[in-house]
Amino acid sequence: MTNSRSSPRRLGEFAMIAKYFAPLAKGAKGAFDLKDDVAVLELPKGAKLIAKVDAVVEDVHFFRSDPPDLIAQKALRVNLSDLAAKGALPLGYLLSLSLPSWVDNAWIAAFARGLAKDQKRYGIHLLGGDTTATPGVLTISVTALGVGTAKKTPRRAGAAPGDLVFVTGTIGDAGAGLAVLKGKGASLTKLERDTLIRRYRLPEPRLVLGRLIAPLVSASLDVSDGLIADLDHIAEVSGVAIDVDASSIPLHKASRKLWGGGAVAKAAAAGDEYEIAFTARPRAHAAIAAAARRTKVKVTHIGTVQEGKGVRLLKNGRSVRIERAGYTHF
Amino acid sequence: MTNSRSSPRRLGEFAMIAKYFAPLAKGAKGAFDLKDDVAVLELPKGAKLIAKVDAVVEDVHFFRSDPPDLIAQKALRVNLSDLAAKGALPLGYLLSLSLPSWVDNAWIAAFARGLAKDQKRYGIHLLGGDTTATPGVLTISVTALGVGTAKKTPRRAGAAPGDLVFVTGTIGDAGAGLAVLKGKGASLTKLERDTLIRRYRLPEPRLVLGRLIAPLVSASLDVSDGLIADLDHIAEVSGVAIDVDASSIPLHKASRKLWGGGAVAKAAAAGDEYEIAFTARPRAHAAIAAAARRTKVKVTHIGTVQEGKGVRLLKNGRSVRIERAGYTHF
Repeated sequence: MTNSRSSPRRLGEFAMIAKYFAPLAKGAKGAFDLKDDVAVLELPKGAKLIAKVDAVVEDVHFFRSDPPDLIAQKALRVNLSDLAAKGALPLGYLLSLSLPSWVDNAWIAAFARGLAKDQKRYGIHLLGGDTTATPGVLTISVTALGVGTAKKTPRRAGAAPGDLVFVTGTIGDAGAGLAVLKGKGASLTKLERDTLIRRYRLPEPRLVLGRLIAPLVSASLDVSDGLIADLDHIAEVSGVAIDVDASSIPLHKASRKLWGGGAVAKAAAAGDEYEIAFTARPRAHAAIAAAARRTKVKVTHIGTVQEGKGVRLLKNGRSVRIERAGYTHF
Repeated sequence: MTNSRSSPRRLGEFAMIAKYFAPLAKGAKGAFDLKDDVAVLELPKGAKLIAKVDAVVEDVHFFRSDPPDLIAQKALRVNLSDLAAKGALPLGYLLSLSLPSWVDNAWIAAFARGLAKDQKRYGIHLLGGDTTATPGVLTISVTALGVGTAKKTPRRAGAAPGDLVFVTGTIGDAGAGLAVLKGKGASLTKLERDTLIRRYRLPEPRLVLGRLIAPLVSASLDVSDGLIADLDHIAEVSGVAIDVDASSIPLHKASRKLWGGGAVAKAAAAGDEYEIAFTARPRAHAAIAAAARRTKVKVTHIGTVQEGKGVRLLKNGRSVRIERAGYTHF
């Protein structure tokens, strides 16, 4: 539209795509080495397409000084995490990049290396994309595409009174990692600080576990707004109440050390965790535990579904106040 | 990540989605009224998924002062245009919005009205999305999803020597409209100026025609980088040369009036046209003309495919220099 905003520090659009991004599409049928205008995907017979878009923005979700490969991996993983919670097998992703002039070839190269690493890890490819200049901040929008593997794709709706509530991994690690990045955690060892920062920067989408438990759950989502806020989404859409036993929430020992007595409340409110929170009938408990053992992902029973509405965090049977019920980027 | 950047001028994320965007998902199976984390789509049996992402950015593709409904429609249509060139039937779209603080409720409401209008026009729905705040400029990324209707989805590759080259509509209108917006066109009537501006702001994806000609074309794409630049994409990927007869390029009389003797060269270089440029075997000519009549879309034979490489713009058999061969937002 307005004249092209060249950056002397990086290749032009077509050359950049050819050099850094086309290799990421290599081997993906229907991505045409990014030399066409669209991606053409043939899904397995009868498969449902699962689609999710999420953007990460400089100074909102990451900093300019963060390692570009980690920014790339997180942008991808926050979307794969949604697919994991729905039991989907990821096929690939589309990438929409808005690049300010400070982004140079070296940054793009490192960013692409991060994507390549995760493509290998998760067996996916870049299917298509779009790059544009921006006078604003670096903005990365990823659309993840997958196929549903469960007969019934897990949703937020579906939790029923009597169901058990579970969560994967440990909760609050990412929130603690962010606090450490902001200068907290002097009492922690370097290893503890690094572990928490890594958990913040590199969430681990629970894709294999997600597919195993998808037929067993009554409702499921990934924890991005915060454990309590996200369970509240399930409660609201399912028309139920959820009671969470505060002492059951699985915490990493480093975040417990960081936050002391307030650790549970902090963890319950922390966003960007990207673990799966889900509900299931009690009879599914043994099969869920078996899936956890098989994938070596910790799965913890943290509460129950009740009639009513809202989420209560209970400590010795009494409600605990939490700092912030919801987490939004607004 | 960093603390939420509230804007006092608009609703919070969840309330905004519920009020302005959930109505756009109403009636779309698998969009769950935007109350879930992913969209779940069941495609017709054996259907191929066609996917495309494209972002539009404030001060690059549009101005803050542009009418929000038109910004919305253009953001959607530039993606639908790609689907049209590939003969796809659009199913719906995902929307990723990065909103600076100047965007208020009234802007969002008008933006959503624009989307609603085009959803009705094209029979599609909002399937999912993501909104975030940004300290930068307004950035709108649309992922369009459709199903391929042709046995063989038209690509950039496939043009062969002897094929004819066609283009839909008139070329250069959008480029002329942009020039008018920048102050040119004092000699034009108000109606002529408005017509060109509208062509710039509201491209018309040739969806119905695109589906009719998809089985007839050998290569096809939409004109976004510029007629010559885009034909060059076809030539490069197909491994052929393309000769375009300058006098055959269909121009709007208003852009001819605006640009005078240089009109053809300007039009051939102008981006953002969103007409379909395609090649086809000569024997398909009659069927293409019939599709044009049926859909009342002008289709013009403008050149031929030759052995060799590159695109030549010919005037009385002599090559004409064009101002700018490629159009990128870099």
